This record gives sequence, C-alpha cells and structure tokens, in this order.
Amino acid sequence: MMEITTKFKIDQPTKEVFDAIVNPNKIGNFWFSSSSERWEQGKMVTLRYDEYEAKGVITVLEIQENKKIVFSWGAESGEGTVVTITLEDLDHTSTKIEVIESGFKEDDPEIVNIMLGQKGGWVYMLSCLKAYLEQGITTLRASLIH
Amino acid sequence: MMEITTKFKIDQPTKEVFDAIVNPNKIGNFWFSSSSERWEQGKMVTLRYDEYEAKGVITVLEIQENKKIVFSWGAESGEGTVVTITLEDLDHTSTKIEVIESGFKEDDPEIVNIMLGQKGGWVYMLSCLKAYLEQGITTLRASLIH
Repeated sequence: MMEITTKFKIDQPTKEVFDAIVNPNKIGNFWFSSSSERWEQGKMVTLRYDEYEAKGVITVLEIQENKKIVFSWGAESGEGTVVTITLEDLDHTSTKIEVIESGFKEDDPEIVNIMLGQKGGWVYMLSCLKAYLEQGITTLRASLIH
Repeated sequence: MMEITTKFKIDQPTKEVFDAIVNPNKIGNFWFSSSSERWEQGKMVTLRYDEYEAKGVITVLEIQENKKIVFSWGAESGEGTVVTITLEDLDHTSTKIEVIESGFKEDDPEIVNIMLGQKGGWVYMLSCLKAYLEQGITTLRASLIH
C-alpha cells in the first residue's frame, strides 16, 4: 500500500485547524497562495501557488466539520492521489492532525522521488500551519526550493 | 544513488545560519534538545532529543566556516549515512541552504520508509531553523508525531 502518513501536534482547537484549511481567507497564510472558494463536500476548488507559477484543482470528497477533510487531486496529470486529513481533539486546546496521501502508482519508475517530494511538502505545510496558528507567522511558506 | 536533497531559502546571512547549527547554545531552539559541544572538524558530538528520549553521536568530517558542514551519523545502528550541508550566500542578507543525506542502503527492505522519514525530518528541521532565525520562534520543533 503506497501511502504517506504525516502527523503533527498543533496547540490550537480542532475548529481553528479545520477553518485554516477550508477557509479561502486563511490558506494563503501557510499553504497555497489562494483557494477559489470555501472547501465543501462535492466542490471542485482551484488552488494556486503563485510563487511556483502552478495551479491545480482538487475535488472535495468528504467534509466532517472540525474532524475530517478528504480530497483528490492530480487526476489530470495521471498521478491522482487521495488526501485524508483527520483532526483529533486532544484536550480542547490542542489538536493532533494526521495527513494520509494514498494512491501512488507502485509501478511508476519515479515513485520514490514523487513520494519524497510529497512527504517533504506535507511536513512543510504542517510546520507552516503550526507557526501560523500558534504564532501568527505567515512568512514561512514558499521557501522550499525545488 | 540513494540520497535525499532538501533546499531552503532563509532570509539571514550565511554566518547566522552556520552558527545556529554548530553552536550548542542555539541548536535547542530549532532542532535537537542539545549538542555536547561546538561542531568542529574531526570532533565527535553527542546530540540529544529529550522529547523522543533519543540520543546519537555524529562525527564531524568537514567544516568550512559559513560554507559547509559534513558529518556522519547512525553507524552504530548499521544504517550510517553522511550529511552534507552547504550554505550559499545569495545577497549578503539571505542564504540558500542545501542538505544532502547520502549512503542509504538500497537493499534494505525498509529503505523507502527510512528515506521518507529522513526527508520529513530535514524539511521540518529547515522550517524550524527558518522560523528561529527569521522570527525568533523556538516553539516549532518536536511536534512531529512518529
């Protein structure tokens, strides 16, 4: 089973972590530059990365308020994966966030490099999310050089 | 060639980035809890991670002041690798830092998981280093859950 799991502890309630991801007014502080609209189940949302001159469309497969976000992306390039973000309330003031990206193609000769790139991306996104939610820092993102 | 390369841009001069890594009074702000002494060529240095109840010894193979740090680690577990950290001055106020970890064993059945773990670790360390040097944030580290 080719998947990547990344887990972080963030010292903020689950609703703050959830909202940072689905709210298009917040995502630019720690992840993509912009999100075309609020993430809701069944929606297709366009994400832009101005710094890398990139954009992509995600399909939001499932939303459980303050608990779970599932989306697919990358289908247009033939390398589609599914991302499952789960939020676990630890003590009403902190959250365990788990990101699982699955569906990588085992027979792709570039599979290891692709997975390493995605792993780095998730750790970076979660570091930036933590810095944003705990400290209000919005300048960590977009400094990973490809 | 099994190696992992991770590159970041940090908005601080190379000497600040270099000192944060080799100076035992600074490392606890963004990476390990402690370093037994200043990193100098030929030295063996003990690094502790109190949060994970772990420690390890590195051998500093090469130091070029403000430019390069090369060390080996993990030999005691039979999974030794070499880490080469290179600092490139961009404009006297910012630095491109590149970390290459090499020497992973291709025939290890756990090779992909090991490399994914290390990749995540490097992106996390560099995120924490950037937050520390640019913003003085020392609370990002040790929140990646294994």
